[in-house]
Amino acid sequence: MFWGVKMDLKKKVSLAVVKRLPRYYRYLADLLKMDIKRISSQELSSRMGITASQIRQDLNCFGGFGQQGYGYNVEYLFNEIGNILGMNNNYQAIIIGAGNMGRALANYTNFEKRGFKIIGIFDIDTNLIGTDIRDIPIRHLDELESFISKNYVDIAMLAVPFEQTPAVAERVAKLGVKGLWNYSPMDLKLPYDVIIENVHLSDGLMVLGYKLNEKFDFNRENSNKGNED
Amino acid sequence: MFWGVKMDLKKKVSLAVVKRLPRYYRYLADLLKMDIKRISSQELSSRMGITASQIRQDLNCFGGFGQQGYGYNVEYLFNEIGNILGMNNNYQAIIIGAGNMGRALANYTNFEKRGFKIIGIFDIDTNLIGTDIRDIPIRHLDELESFISKNYVDIAMLAVPFEQTPAVAERVAKLGVKGLWNYSPMDLKLPYDVIIENVHLSDGLMVLGYKLNEKFDFNRENSNKGNED
Repeated sequence: MFWGVKMDLKKKVSLAVVKRLPRYYRYLADLLKMDIKRISSQELSSRMGITASQIRQDLNCFGGFGQQGYGYNVEYLFNEIGNILGMNNNYQAIIIGAGNMGRALANYTNFEKRGFKIIGIFDIDTNLIGTDIRDIPIRHLDELESFISKNYVDIAMLAVPFEQTPAVAERVAKLGVKGLWNYSPMDLKLPYDVIIENVHLSDGLMVLGYKLNEKFDFNRENSNKGNED
Repeated sequence: MFWGVKMDLKKKVSLAVVKRLPRYYRYLADLLKMDIKRISSQELSSRMGITASQIRQDLNCFGGFGQQGYGYNVEYLFNEIGNILGMNNNYQAIIIGAGNMGRALANYTNFEKRGFKIIGIFDIDTNLIGTDIRDIPIRHLDELESFISKNYVDIAMLAVPFEQTPAVAERVAKLGVKGLWNYSPMDLKLPYDVIIENVHLSDGLMVLGYKLNEKFDFNRENSNKGNED
């Protein structure tokens, strides 16, 4: 396994574009499944609901895979975006916390399709230790150090209670895990050389709330609904 | 309850800015808690890790709450962003699917802090019906129509298995629910006048994968790790 194959592409892409790449990657995967070999920016635009000019601009960041009158080669574009995103690095991840969120993550088979393999789950609840989720055993958190010393762990998915998150995060960072995916509602920061992605579930909900507010205008006071019992 | 109070602000803000607003909102909430009355774009910049010019640009969309030499009035900005996001609409939500993801959502108390109240949970597993999560009873999906006819339901959070998602989504849309928050890994589309936010958990993980790939360069083949059993 080798990291950083795409040296020449490093630093060339803005984070705004990077954040859109997973979406392109998913759509291209669907096209591949449908055996579609090439696609114009117009067709991709109508499928994805992004303007064709945005698509051309985004994909031009990588040196322009599109050809006038031909469109994009779906397989080539899929592979290139996959390379840029590091999908071929065979990242290995552990989940810390086997509560509802941790279990939901462990059951999310799409991570594997995107090149992320979950190799361990940790918790402190002795009732859970020894059980497994999709054949991945749940280990006691005490085994973390020993496990990481024996296995490549690139990413720790943190799904522990809020108060415990900073200490657990520091523990995995000290053990050399470079990527932290934090599901506790806080902007976790650590004085270590690590990448932290903080997931704020409510942010997406707030965007939905904004769109509802923007699109629909109605006055509940005109209705009897909700007045019963 | 009244929707669309901020008529005059409608359509003025780009979606890119809207997507950053929840983050501002969270930081401003923290500042309020610390009893900080005003803040400069520079201070906000160093806290949030966004450039001061980006902050000024984002917040100017709303007519400029900042004053030269004074900075931003934290409470005013917090309230205005809350209004824009529709946080004062007292949105009511239901969760469909009481598996791990649905339960994780039901236990996420931050939604309430952001103005979203979960008023019902639905499932088809008879073992779950009649139990509750944080005092919210789990009802049989058969009761959906009757429940929605008696209660305002603005948002349905869909946490059902992939195959069942389109049918369940159509069912709630037909019942007049205007906001769908979809946790199944698909870009759900419906021929109804609804807002759909599709959550793709793996997208955030792929961005983390990109950042790891960009920052760290190492060759696993030089290590003995992972070669044991």
